Parts: sequence; structure tokens; C-alpha cells
Amino acid sequence: MDLKQYVSEVENWPKEGVQFKDITTIMDNGKAYGYAVDQIAEYAKDLDIDIVVGPEARGFIIGCPVAYKLGIGFAPVRKPGKLPRETVAFEYDLEYGQNTLEMHKDAIKPGARVLITDDLLATGGTVKATIKLIEELGGVVAGMAFLIELEYLNGKSLLDGYDYISLIKYED
Amino acid sequence: MDLKQYVSEVENWPKEGVQFKDITTIMDNGKAYGYAVDQIAEYAKDLDIDIVVGPEARGFIIGCPVAYKLGIGFAPVRKPGKLPRETVAFEYDLEYGQNTLEMHKDAIKPGARVLITDDLLATGGTVKATIKLIEELGGVVAGMAFLIELEYLNGKSLLDGYDYISLIKYED
Repeated sequence: MDLKQYVSEVENWPKEGVQFKDITTIMDNGKAYGYAVDQIAEYAKDLDIDIVVGPEARGFIIGCPVAYKLGIGFAPVRKPGKLPRETVAFEYDLEYGQNTLEMHKDAIKPGARVLITDDLLATGGTVKATIKLIEELGGVVAGMAFLIELEYLNGKSLLDGYDYISLIKYED
Repeated sequence: MDLKQYVSEVENWPKEGVQFKDITTIMDNGKAYGYAVDQIAEYAKDLDIDIVVGPEARGFIIGCPVAYKLGIGFAPVRKPGKLPRETVAFEYDLEYGQNTLEMHKDAIKPGARVLITDDLLATGGTVKATIKLIEELGGVVAGMAFLIELEYLNGKSLLDGYDYISLIKYED
């Protein structure tokens, strides 16, 4: 299945000159969405994953059904003030500004093997922050999966030494 | 399985006097999370659902794996400015203030049978707004599923004529 044909390309959003890749038209199609989840679960099945982690909110859309398919749990990465119990935090630069992300301190058990999921690998800032949070909690990032990779933004350069897949690639 | 034992009760969050029901400790447990998703999918399977809809972000955590399990798509309900294409919007009061929610105009086909999912049925404001958006787009709310229902807040009173289940109930 060619997933790229289900992506909606939105011109000048969220700002002038940016062409946004909207994945809601993958998600609202049961066949495309199921295929994407199955591809990621297939990638993960030999990685001995204990838990799936994804940043809000689009990381949930990918990671939650993957966790369900693998029969394991999901731990959310959220913006400040959204998680009610004790958290760890990491601040970072992202494509359109700056951001802080948090995880519950007890979300990752020491030594747990983690799959990170998100909709988009762009500059890599969000996933790098997610890696930092997981590693601070003693987890092992065993793999990562993205629906879309914008190869021209070179997020890959921040992920040296980590394994990942992306299902849809844009070279330019 | 008694799902209630996996809920973390957090005192005085997000404000003094409120006891928050934290579902992250259901989600990060693969057995509890899978059981919850299976219960909702079982409820939905005879409702002839075309698409699952959930409000961000915790509605995604419930609805996305349910959509995957049912082999259908998922359409997100989001806060203003998050959806890149043409939207419909609805403003409403919620437990701790006021809110506006949006959906993409093409997310629901006229006549589509919809399952709404969310983590929590409290006063019912969020789900009522979600119903309004779906019906404005010509969809039929065929059922709703909540992980938790705070029965003492009487959200049920806003949902007259609609069918729903809640997996975990708090009477007081």
C-alpha cells in the first residue's frame, strides 16, 4: 500500500512557506491506518519491547494501537502541567519555537526496552527530547517508528546510534 | 479484571479539593490497557460503526486502539489551531473553565455511524460538544464509551437518548 497518497499536503500551515503533512486522512481511513500500525508492529516484534512511548498528541495516535497490537502498555510524553504525578522534564528547541516535555517518573522501569512512536520525524528535536526522558528514567530506546520522515530536515543526524523506521519519506 | 485497581487517585489536582483519576497507570499496563480496549470494541461490534471519534488527547489513547481493533478509521477532535484544514467549531463550558473544540469538515461523511471515546465522563461538556460537532457534519452518534464515569457529576443527564458504556464507575 502506498501510504503517501493518503497524506494531505496543506500549503502555508502552520506558517507561510511551510507545507504541512496532515496525517488525519491516513487515520480516518481504516485500511490505511491499520496498514500503518501493522507495519510498525511488524518492525517492533523482534525488538523485545516492554513499553511504547509517544509524545502528545499525534504520537498517541500511532503509538497506542501499536502498543495494543503488541499486547504491551503505552506511556505518554506530555506538555508541562498535563501529568498529575511526579515527572521528569526536558526542554528543547523545535521546528516552530521552544518546548518542554514531561514523563511520569514511574512510567519507565529501569532497563525497560522502549519503542518511541511519533507521526513525524522533522528536525528530530521532539524525539531527541523523548529519548533523553526515557534514558533519564533508566530505559533503553530499542527502536523508533515514524509515520513520516522529512529527510531534507535531517532529523536522522540527531539519532546516531539509534534504530528507527519511517513509513513515508519526503526527500525534498 | 477489576480495572479500578489500576487507576491512580491523585489528591488536589488539577486544583485544591479535586481528586483526579489518573488513567496512565491503566495504559502503561499492557494487560489492563488491552482489556479496556477489548471491552469497548466488544460493546461497539454490533453497532455497525463507521468511524471512531475522540477528543484530544486522552480520547486518542482510548479511541485509536479501538478503531484499529474494529478495522476502521479514527477522527480527532482538537483544540483550536491544531487541525490544518477546514474545520467546524463548538464552544462549551467544562469542569475547570471554558473550551472550544474543532473537527475537520471532511472527517465525518453524512450518515456515518460514529463511536465517541474518551477517558472520562464527568460533567459531560466535552462529550456533548463532540456530539454537536459530529451531528453538524451529518454523522450519527451510534454509541459512546468512557473508561471512567464520575456518576456524582451527572454527565448522564446531558446524554439523554444516546447509548453509552463506562468501564469504571465512581458513585461518590
